[in-house]
Amino acid sequence: MENRVFNFNPGPATLPESVLVEVRDELLNYKGEGLSVLEMSHRSKTFDDIVNDAVAVVKRIMGFGDEYAVLFLQGGATAQFAAVPLNLATNGKPGLYINTGSWSKKAIAEAKKLGVAHKVIASSEEANFSYIPTDFQIDPDASYLHITSNNTIFGTQWQSYPQTGDVPLIADMSSDFYCRRFDPNQFALIYAGAQKNAGPAGVTIVIIRKDLLERSPDNIPTVLNYKIYAEKNSLYNTPNCFGIYIVGKVMHWIEDQGGIDAVEKVNREKAQLLYDTLDATDFYRPTARPDSRSMMNVTFRLPDEELEKKFVAEAAENGMVGLKGHRSVGGIRASIYNAMPLEGVKALVDFMKEFEKKNG
Amino acid sequence: MENRVFNFNPGPATLPESVLVEVRDELLNYKGEGLSVLEMSHRSKTFDDIVNDAVAVVKRIMGFGDEYAVLFLQGGATAQFAAVPLNLATNGKPGLYINTGSWSKKAIAEAKKLGVAHKVIASSEEANFSYIPTDFQIDPDASYLHITSNNTIFGTQWQSYPQTGDVPLIADMSSDFYCRRFDPNQFALIYAGAQKNAGPAGVTIVIIRKDLLERSPDNIPTVLNYKIYAEKNSLYNTPNCFGIYIVGKVMHWIEDQGGIDAVEKVNREKAQLLYDTLDATDFYRPTARPDSRSMMNVTFRLPDEELEKKFVAEAAENGMVGLKGHRSVGGIRASIYNAMPLEGVKALVDFMKEFEKKNG
Repeated sequence: MENRVFNFNPGPATLPESVLVEVRDELLNYKGEGLSVLEMSHRSKTFDDIVNDAVAVVKRIMGFGDEYAVLFLQGGATAQFAAVPLNLATNGKPGLYINTGSWSKKAIAEAKKLGVAHKVIASSEEANFSYIPTDFQIDPDASYLHITSNNTIFGTQWQSYPQTGDVPLIADMSSDFYCRRFDPNQFALIYAGAQKNAGPAGVTIVIIRKDLLERSPDNIPTVLNYKIYAEKNSLYNTPNCFGIYIVGKVMHWIEDQGGIDAVEKVNREKAQLLYDTLDATDFYRPTARPDSRSMMNVTFRLPDEELEKKFVAEAAENGMVGLKGHRSVGGIRASIYNAMPLEGVKALVDFMKEFEKKNG
Repeated sequence: MENRVFNFNPGPATLPESVLVEVRDELLNYKGEGLSVLEMSHRSKTFDDIVNDAVAVVKRIMGFGDEYAVLFLQGGATAQFAAVPLNLATNGKPGLYINTGSWSKKAIAEAKKLGVAHKVIASSEEANFSYIPTDFQIDPDASYLHITSNNTIFGTQWQSYPQTGDVPLIADMSSDFYCRRFDPNQFALIYAGAQKNAGPAGVTIVIIRKDLLERSPDNIPTVLNYKIYAEKNSLYNTPNCFGIYIVGKVMHWIEDQGGIDAVEKVNREKAQLLYDTLDATDFYRPTARPDSRSMMNVTFRLPDEELEKKFVAEAAENGMVGLKGHRSVGGIRASIYNAMPLEGVKALVDFMKEFEKKNG
């Protein structure tokens, strides 16, 4: 018995325990090769198999076809905030952005910093990012439209994705990557730091429609150039080998659960349990508008900040950690990514009811 | 018994077995916290301690003072090839480069691609990079001088570093980081992908003299901005947490061996054993000029390519892997980084003598 806690941290976040057990058991000697994946040449046949398998399972789960490339890069979403405008803005045509929270703002600020034409076509900042805007016009001549599909800090999530016609749709899915089924063909580019829903920190998953690769100019930093990394199957230089290996395992874990639909079903059940608990009382106040609620990050307030501190501390004493809201908004945040088991959410809900009884 | 091989790969490369054992034992539950470092918030007190400890031990081993910052970044040397000119080239003053092999060439090509003023002041390309140039003039008005301290592919290494006066000396130490004592104060900036001598792939160690941070302009990609990452102690965004944790352990392992002098002594012994074996016969032909030989990567040829193939295959059968030379030069390369035990080199030397006897 490993005596593990329920880890509600927003990212890096909980991983499936079965994946960790496999990683541990293979740590000193991967499949009888006599060395660890931590020590393995990225030019070896064995590691090639690891990368190719990870690419294949990422594509298979959601049904991405041959017209898409899967890359495993470094630098997190922060690197992608730069890579998107540097690679994909064409002929001064603006990149469009929808501002749904802190991470959208960083993406927009990076385009500005780099001097790339861009335009914010909608924002929910006036309502403290409590909802996802639905009223906006997409200039058909834009280079792309960039959205943040889930907003970890504000607990909101796009419920369905915008129709963009010929304008490439780009989504930062860092905090809801593969939490539910979607139509892969509506996206030109998806990126996600792995550390929330897909693996450890230090790997960024990029899924890009191959026709976009032609846009990458030569005079941008090589490490941010999609075309160069796509041509080398992510192995232009040494990648985060161990991180890719774990992402592959987490993707196989999704398949072992029954695939994306089965994982989505459990995610919906977990979120429903929590939101029902919040809606049943005035003691807990959910912060996201009901039509924009996230399945991944459930954010709420208590009657006052003292009670919030007490809540976080007592939950931790009861084996539930990482519930403190982001420093920029306060309150409570329960991050319930794919790897959070239903029992974790049930334990949290039980604790919440008990806490309200004692303090309400 | 884990039945591990001797791993002579050039990088990712062998790690100390005692480090791997610790990592394995902590994998599901780090110090009783009930979660893995793979799942740990980078904003937690525990992870702060991990980063701060890693910074402290990196500085302590070589005696870097308070005027230096240690950063743990992503993207490998490839990212640094861009970061160096983007951050440090000032007012069009050229960055100087010495071209000692494939990695130097990539650093130079990146400065060129990004349109930053630069000048190659020496090169050993005319002799297939078999030596380190010593004849060059350093323009005192340059932005910096960049060298590659060890050339993995060609098996050469700077034996002592150039005197640069007021011109900041920058070294890509990816393949000989902390293999021997040096005077830390002669460097303005050192960087190293961790995957050869300091940890797993996916972490880049950067040691920068703090006065250089003032040079970083605002309009470069955030992920490549030294100043921003220094201000946030590497935690501007989520770093490769697990990689940093292992780098810290590898650095502590250096101290456990008796510190940098003790590690250097073993490294010299290992290299001597191998070069003595090469020099004792005409069967093996070392490729680096004696005055430029690397302590980390020992490169040599056999009488013909068929014998080289046989050598690599038979060594692998005898539990010694990764001996094939880089695809761009062929031959044999034994990478004997800090974590390669003396017994590994002794086993290789025994094998070499036996192989010569049978095939010579």
